[in-house]
Amino acid sequence: MKTKDKIIQASLKLFNQQGERVVTTNHIAEHLNISPGLLYYHFKNKESIIQAIFLEYTLHIKNAITVPNDTSDPSEFLATYCDDIFEGIWHYRFLHLSMPTLLIQHNELHNHYLEAHQLLIARASSAVQWLRDFELIEIEENQIATLVDLMRLVTGFWVGFSIANHLGTELTKKQVHAGREHLIALLAPYATPSGKVIFNNLSTTVP
Amino acid sequence: MKTKDKIIQASLKLFNQQGERVVTTNHIAEHLNISPGLLYYHFKNKESIIQAIFLEYTLHIKNAITVPNDTSDPSEFLATYCDDIFEGIWHYRFLHLSMPTLLIQHNELHNHYLEAHQLLIARASSAVQWLRDFELIEIEENQIATLVDLMRLVTGFWVGFSIANHLGTELTKKQVHAGREHLIALLAPYATPSGKVIFNNLSTTVP
Repeated sequence: MKTKDKIIQASLKLFNQQGERVVTTNHIAEHLNISPGLLYYHFKNKESIIQAIFLEYTLHIKNAITVPNDTSDPSEFLATYCDDIFEGIWHYRFLHLSMPTLLIQHNELHNHYLEAHQLLIARASSAVQWLRDFELIEIEENQIATLVDLMRLVTGFWVGFSIANHLGTELTKKQVHAGREHLIALLAPYATPSGKVIFNNLSTTVP
Repeated sequence: MKTKDKIIQASLKLFNQQGERVVTTNHIAEHLNISPGLLYYHFKNKESIIQAIFLEYTLHIKNAITVPNDTSDPSEFLATYCDDIFEGIWHYRFLHLSMPTLLIQHNELHNHYLEAHQLLIARASSAVQWLRDFELIEIEENQIATLVDLMRLVTGFWVGFSIANHLGTELTKKQVHAGREHLIALLAPYATPSGKVIFNNLSTTVP
């Protein structure tokens, strides 16, 4: 791995574990056993490391969240879909925690965020329409946009919600993946009888 | 108004308008036309002002969110319920923006938050059961807890979600109250035919 990528990965790890506010570039250099000078050669400050991680996150959104196709098995597709979403949230959890504050501070990041979320909205809408085509849910066309908003809200702020609900304990991977139940709960009331079976299964088998 | 209360109100106003991070105790004193010394007599630093506002917010939660009674008119009750919720969110919007980060930093505030939200959960559950008793929604007993979680998630993070969706513009009162549509959208798929009429009305008449 190149030094630049090593710095990004180590920073992500430390930000996730200790919180972005308390980690300094000196901590990162020390963790990697490199000189602060070498770190500054690649990144002029902590902000620019955060920006690099942020761009990696928007690329992840663009690549990881797939659209189902006609041959997908609904049950399998939904399980993978949820796993991918919450694994991404777990991987970039420090970003999720302070997302709106970060976006206010950096117009350029905000533009990247909006671009990635436009794609996310289109893909999540496709996924909802696909569930309807498979007769797993019944939903009016004009309800889809708000449902997709709710899906983005629940996933985008799941880290903050989980932290707010638990006093003084570090967020666990299990708590993050438990968000699946709440994501499915947004769809469940629209379920057809065959959809109900699949959604029930998914809710009770959170990884 | 007492000087202490004046400081709290002025700080809330400035934090909401400019963001908590950029406002200093000097700005607050200047805004009130008092000496920094007088401010420090009442509050030892910015943190303790934030804590005072936070306690005011938890009191607001405990007092403002009412439980419906048998004689309430459902349509009127729901409109008032939503207005009260989003007016509170608007009033304390800077707190909502950085809530989880604040809670991580202050165990004492986190305890107050959890206590207030326990009450909030109980009252929101009562409101959902009341909607069911009035035959406006059909919902299984075991679906209520997750629905209440979703209601807390959508309202608690509505400010962050709205800010993330809009580039470079200050959050408006109208945008905050527009959250009513998404709160109602959580209930709408459970609606009975008579509930549908009421929910549709509420969604299209956001203040």
